[in-house]
Amino acid sequence: MPVNLNTPAASSLLPINGVTLGFAEAHIRKANRKDLLVILLAEGSHVSGVFTQNQFCAAPVLLCKTHLAGDQPIRALLVNTGCANAGTGDDGLYRAKLTTEALAIALNIHPQQVLPFSTGVILETLPADKVIAGLPAAIANLKQDNWLNAAEAIMTTDIVAKGTSRRIVLGGKSVTITGVSKGSGMIHPNMATMLGYIATDAVISSSALDSIIRFAVNKSFNCITVDGDTSTNDSLIMIASNQAGNDEVTENSAEFTVLRDALTDVAIELAQAIVRDGEGATKFMTVTIEGGRDEAECRKVAYAIAHSPLIKTAFFASDPNLGRILAAIGYAGVERLDINALKLYLGDVLVAEKGGRALAYEEAQGVAVMQQPEILVRVDLARGNASCTVWTCDFSYDYVRINADYRS
Amino acid sequence: MPVNLNTPAASSLLPINGVTLGFAEAHIRKANRKDLLVILLAEGSHVSGVFTQNQFCAAPVLLCKTHLAGDQPIRALLVNTGCANAGTGDDGLYRAKLTTEALAIALNIHPQQVLPFSTGVILETLPADKVIAGLPAAIANLKQDNWLNAAEAIMTTDIVAKGTSRRIVLGGKSVTITGVSKGSGMIHPNMATMLGYIATDAVISSSALDSIIRFAVNKSFNCITVDGDTSTNDSLIMIASNQAGNDEVTENSAEFTVLRDALTDVAIELAQAIVRDGEGATKFMTVTIEGGRDEAECRKVAYAIAHSPLIKTAFFASDPNLGRILAAIGYAGVERLDINALKLYLGDVLVAEKGGRALAYEEAQGVAVMQQPEILVRVDLARGNASCTVWTCDFSYDYVRINADYRS
Repeated sequence: MPVNLNTPAASSLLPINGVTLGFAEAHIRKANRKDLLVILLAEGSHVSGVFTQNQFCAAPVLLCKTHLAGDQPIRALLVNTGCANAGTGDDGLYRAKLTTEALAIALNIHPQQVLPFSTGVILETLPADKVIAGLPAAIANLKQDNWLNAAEAIMTTDIVAKGTSRRIVLGGKSVTITGVSKGSGMIHPNMATMLGYIATDAVISSSALDSIIRFAVNKSFNCITVDGDTSTNDSLIMIASNQAGNDEVTENSAEFTVLRDALTDVAIELAQAIVRDGEGATKFMTVTIEGGRDEAECRKVAYAIAHSPLIKTAFFASDPNLGRILAAIGYAGVERLDINALKLYLGDVLVAEKGGRALAYEEAQGVAVMQQPEILVRVDLARGNASCTVWTCDFSYDYVRINADYRS
Repeated sequence: MPVNLNTPAASSLLPINGVTLGFAEAHIRKANRKDLLVILLAEGSHVSGVFTQNQFCAAPVLLCKTHLAGDQPIRALLVNTGCANAGTGDDGLYRAKLTTEALAIALNIHPQQVLPFSTGVILETLPADKVIAGLPAAIANLKQDNWLNAAEAIMTTDIVAKGTSRRIVLGGKSVTITGVSKGSGMIHPNMATMLGYIATDAVISSSALDSIIRFAVNKSFNCITVDGDTSTNDSLIMIASNQAGNDEVTENSAEFTVLRDALTDVAIELAQAIVRDGEGATKFMTVTIEGGRDEAECRKVAYAIAHSPLIKTAFFASDPNLGRILAAIGYAGVERLDINALKLYLGDVLVAEKGGRALAYEEAQGVAVMQQPEILVRVDLARGNASCTVWTCDFSYDYVRINADYRS
């Protein structure tokens, strides 16, 4: 069950002026479930995106990058679940184009103004006919207050729909932010994708929005892992409908950091929600590395801990076999690490120092921390001032069950 | 259950002249099991070792490196299970020294002529008193034909004892090689170590033996993974007792490659045995990458596949969700990979080419291959002539069970 995560109330996801959302049951993989989403953006919206680094990136990811780099402003997003359209070669690209063209015709816009997204099994053919057949129903129910329906329409094996909103004041004007995400891992087990969509009505320049999405993704979606696998389809999109009436935010505005931090805060909550709903998760773990020479070496140590199946299964069992964490620190690849200087904490408990077990540490203290659903693992490398934080979940029987049975 | 692996018959493990082995039940962690091993080497033996790269390496690993670098020829090996003596700081080093000194006194040799090894839980204190109390019994039963007992005495949660022998002819003289290993993963789940000991009676120079162990480890123990975790205690030792009467083998001898390849062959069988007995393993997977620009990029792709929990759980389920393999190839970090040129094979079946599913591929073919206990995954990167092979196992419910319950 997801760790401290519930489906948000529909009323808690605030509408964004200039952004309407419509969904449909297109029967792409299964009957009787929302599996198609259209997001329509008002003229004048700005859109930024970041995408998977996987070289086998999906056909829709390739199209998104091309369309975002083009000279046509983005007006619509099209998302399907049930098929990732990845590992599908030229045919996959052709089918992705077909669906964007169909939506463009229906909305009377240019195909390059549509961004397509797919999530589902890799190496299978996109049923473009079903996607296209579902478009009229999705367009017919385009509404501003459809954010919860949108969050549900992009779910695959997610247990909980993921979304959140914020309201801030920018230069005296009220600005709203709403975002949704899906995924149960860096690769979603069955369905192979993390998707995130965050929209605001703030008025902001394109370059400032580009700057913010890069900042936010590094503090959020790039800090989570369930299984260390990077999807072929991962996409995060940030939308500004520019309708809030505030003075345009640029990189030099006083309000830039206010908006940046609010958007980043939403991104962090959505990213953490993916880990809380990680495959088979029973614990939510925050791994914080401090005292590093630079952020890169902190991330090496954090991910060595967060990816270790041995550590993740120990957390599942609430068994403080904390030597496994020392082992992960030791193989993380930090040059000339002084193992006698570093310190390992579990919650507030000092577990290891001077190369071994802390004298005052008792196993009952470790057990008490590990039985909590939210656990902090903190390492002080004692060699600098850099730090980083990564979020992950434990590794349970259900992880194996979900991934072994995923297509049944 | 181990994949195509059985405990060898005691008679199949051939004695090595100049090498005797003795074991004891020292009650280090559990009663009524062999947990202490002494290997005594005749004067004139040569010994080479390679050890874990983990910076939190165990106290006995530090002592081994010091003793091997010293000017005293190695005469004895001392191995305990039940405690890794890693993450134990200065106290751990002190206790490891105590045990080597006790064995040295008993055998009337110098403490620096003893190599100590430990395997077990990290971050726990070595009960040096129990190790020392067990030495007389182990010394009392030192025998040449104790190799199977030795293999059993170093087991932790291994299901099967691991050992093998070869007989070759070098310059008209019969030469024997026998080796044993333990481990169920790069980190053993409970016990945190891979250990391997390979002995031959061949006459060989120290530098040639050093050269061979480096060659062999790169073709064997450095090509296996169960969970991607690198132990604090991993050690491989190669022993030449120099008693076979052959002309001394040097790097320039005609016989060098014959002996090197026979020792490497033993190392590969012992390394594969660890994967076959990997935690919860039900399948043995060979991952071969061909057509790379260099071996390093082939290894990146091979380990991306071999480490992916998504791929390993799919193999457990015999579910040919082979898009997961494309995803792993795509995130392995190979620069400017041409995904349209590479080819993916499962056994002899061409699964993917031209960036997507091969036209002739049918899922039934994939299922047929995946239901076998031994599976070949082969990728042709189509950009060079380098290749590599890595061995791994699948990821089952039992992996989680073993690692979640390991200290009970």
